[in-house]
Amino acid sequence: MAPFEQEIEAIVDTILEDYLHGRDIDRIDLFKQPDKDIIIDMIGKLRRIIFPGYFTEKTYRIYNAKHNLSMLIEDVMFHLTEQVGLVMGSKQEAERICLAFFRAIPQVRALVQTDLQASYDGDPAASGKDEVIFSYPGLFAITVYRLAHVLYSLGVPMIPRIMTEHAHSVTGIDIHPGATVGEYFFIDHGTGIVIGETTVIGDHVKIYQGVTLGALSTRGGQNLRGKRRHPTIEDHVTIYAGASILGGETVIGSNSVIGSNAFITSSIAPGTTVTPKTQELQLRVKEPKKENDK
Amino acid sequence: MAPFEQEIEAIVDTILEDYLHGRDIDRIDLFKQPDKDIIIDMIGKLRRIIFPGYFTEKTYRIYNAKHNLSMLIEDVMFHLTEQVGLVMGSKQEAERICLAFFRAIPQVRALVQTDLQASYDGDPAASGKDEVIFSYPGLFAITVYRLAHVLYSLGVPMIPRIMTEHAHSVTGIDIHPGATVGEYFFIDHGTGIVIGETTVIGDHVKIYQGVTLGALSTRGGQNLRGKRRHPTIEDHVTIYAGASILGGETVIGSNSVIGSNAFITSSIAPGTTVTPKTQELQLRVKEPKKENDK
Amino acid sequence: MAPFEQEIEAIVDTILEDYLHGRDIDRIDLFKQPDKDIIIDMIGKLRRIIFPGYFTEKTYRIYNAKHNLSMLIEDVMFHLTEQVGLVMGSKQEAERICLAFFRAIPQVRALVQTDLQASYDGDPAASGKDEVIFSYPGLFAITVYRLAHVLYSLGVPMIPRIMTEHAHSVTGIDIHPGATVGEYFFIDHGTGIVIGETTVIGDHVKIYQGVTLGALSTRGGQNLRGKRRHPTIEDHVTIYAGASILGGETVIGSNSVIGSNAFITSSIAPGTTVTPKTQELQLRVKEPKKENDK
Repeated sequence: MAPFEQEIEAIVDTILEDYLHGRDIDRIDLFKQPDKDIIIDMIGKLRRIIFPGYFTEKTYRIYNAKHNLSMLIEDVMFHLTEQVGLVMGSKQEAERICLAFFRAIPQVRALVQTDLQASYDGDPAASGKDEVIFSYPGLFAITVYRLAHVLYSLGVPMIPRIMTEHAHSVTGIDIHPGATVGEYFFIDHGTGIVIGETTVIGDHVKIYQGVTLGALSTRGGQNLRGKRRHPTIEDHVTIYAGASILGGETVIGSNSVIGSNAFITSSIAPGTTVTPKTQELQLRVKEPKKENDK
Repeated sequence: MAPFEQEIEAIVDTILEDYLHGRDIDRIDLFKQPDKDIIIDMIGKLRRIIFPGYFTEKTYRIYNAKHNLSMLIEDVMFHLTEQVGLVMGSKQEAERICLAFFRAIPQVRALVQTDLQASYDGDPAASGKDEVIFSYPGLFAITVYRLAHVLYSLGVPMIPRIMTEHAHSVTGIDIHPGATVGEYFFIDHGTGIVIGETTVIGDHVKIYQGVTLGALSTRGGQNLRGKRRHPTIEDHVTIYAGASILGGETVIGSNSVIGSNAFITSSIAPGTTVTPKTQELQLRVKEPKKENDK
Repeated sequence: MAPFEQEIEAIVDTILEDYLHGRDIDRIDLFKQPDKDIIIDMIGKLRRIIFPGYFTEKTYRIYNAKHNLSMLIEDVMFHLTEQVGLVMGSKQEAERICLAFFRAIPQVRALVQTDLQASYDGDPAASGKDEVIFSYPGLFAITVYRLAHVLYSLGVPMIPRIMTEHAHSVTGIDIHPGATVGEYFFIDHGTGIVIGETTVIGDHVKIYQGVTLGALSTRGGQNLRGKRRHPTIEDHVTIYAGASILGGETVIGSNSVIGSNAFITSSIAPGTTVTPKTQELQLRVKEPKKENDK
């Protein structure tokens, strides 16, 4: 055996021995794990179920479309039952959950229609609703969140988070599946948005890029599990780019406007406009030397 | 039929009925829609046309390269004509636009060469131009924007936005295809950059992560369509991380430097340096107790 | 020949002529270039080597798992040697580097186990370590960085940066492979994080979304190559969302806490808590008119 091959063999043995330490990362016998690729594939198919005319593979007749959609729904039903079964450890429980999930689809679609309307109304750059459905990352992230939230509410572990993290990866918008979000929700641009697990958002709320709805401090770590850590945003609130709203007791009253880069850790009364104070005046301006200074 | 199968069938029927509400999301008979997968595939091929030696599939002889590139150009030409035809509803119009688009390729390449030079010159971490072309998200997003901008300028709907939203998804850099950008444009790191539809950027401009060139307020929604809403950035301006420059009447004069996190809503004279005032002094520092305090 | 075909032919010729300008982007005869697709595929396989039980293709018996892992390691070894050979121009050098890289795998795994522990301990929303491994972008970006850093330290050009830029694209977290990072590193949410080439990070450091560990100014461009430009973060430091810490001489002392959106360009003593001064007071609040004002 050549020296290079011998070295490789020795290294392979070293790595295989390294798996015997008994640490979390050494687990090698995992039977019940969801399949991320299948889950991501299901997201694409669920999106075709939500928007039947937009992402289908070119079906030109209504009865064909109907037939295809039936097959699509049964296909997702099958895979979802399997994946939920893997994380729940019970086929019966998985079937119960999947039926409940699909019964909620019309309700999810009704909500997504309001989100679509809000996205179109809110953005002068939108040339039409088609463009919003095809290309807006905000609507994509909200749609995935709404689907994941149903599974989260049904007590499914892991899968909802894999779904929203996929949307996070694609869009830069991180909505925890545990968050509660009302109708007509609009996210513009999106990159860098974080919406924490216990956030509650009302109806007709608009959020811009870089907004954090987060926890005040998570130094408590795992001791804080299940406790309310994120804010409440009431109806008709607009939150501009880069604002941070933190804390489980923080309530932004309805019809308030939160300006860019505002940093808020306590409640705001309804109808309030909050902006970082005289932002322009805080600038230090060094103008160029004039001609006669030379 | 087993109860589970019966339940599934009932659910499928419910969802199919849900498509009959006549809302936007219920449209099922869409004939003229662009194919996002084909458009994303074209972006990859256009990038090989822009950088012929970098992303080709291992062609080792010049005459072969030439032959392959001809085929590649004709391939993109064919698909682009088809996709533009779908959104314009006219084959003749689509052919006219595609010819104009490809006639602009040498001009796009000349601009991208200046962007490449600016990226290399501006980043001490760049070990060579090859590394910039292979791995810099800024150059990728700018290249896709420059291609999409040509289509946008030729009046093509939807497709340019699908292109820049793909780049946005890959890089976190959201440049609207309607923006106007001069030569030697450099974007460093990139994540979280938003450049709005009516922005005008001069030559030799540098932009860092988290910068927004946005609208002051979009509460006007669809009423603001087509109006100037985003700022003008003149030549040789540098804008550091997290700065926001807003408003259609805001002009940043040439040779100005905008500091990190500055928030600007009115014009700045040429040659000005703007930084959030005494940023360090605004810090509240709580030092640790000393040993003898115990 | 039809007029449209003639026009296409003329355009193809124009583009082929455009490749003869001799600019960087015109290079057509590149023999030694790494293959981005192969490198990205290797990242997936390396992740399976790091977490053998999590991303494998359903192997249910230990001896099978062992066999599969041997094959996987040899597969990555083969491709990595080839890719490194392309950028180094020497097969012998490539073999030496690949052996060194794989010898470092147990050390990388030991570090990743500490990162996993830190991610789980630090996030109350984490329902288990499985969820962290499957879906947390922070752990993904750190894992890719740790692998790329080994190659960077072995003097491999381009490939490390292609690896971390892939992670940047997937997660919005941009860690330069040249950065030095201690154990128990936790990144929450992640989008918009930038960690520069010469940054040094100690043990038990936590970083939230939108944090920049960057250079004070890069106007020196390529003249600054190889010089220390980014900060030092000592052990047990927490840096909250949106903070910027800049400059090669800036040291954040151990056990310090840097508040959201803080902007720091000089050193901070150990044990210090730094927050932007009275952030709430800086807000300008416009409350709604009361009922009796009508």
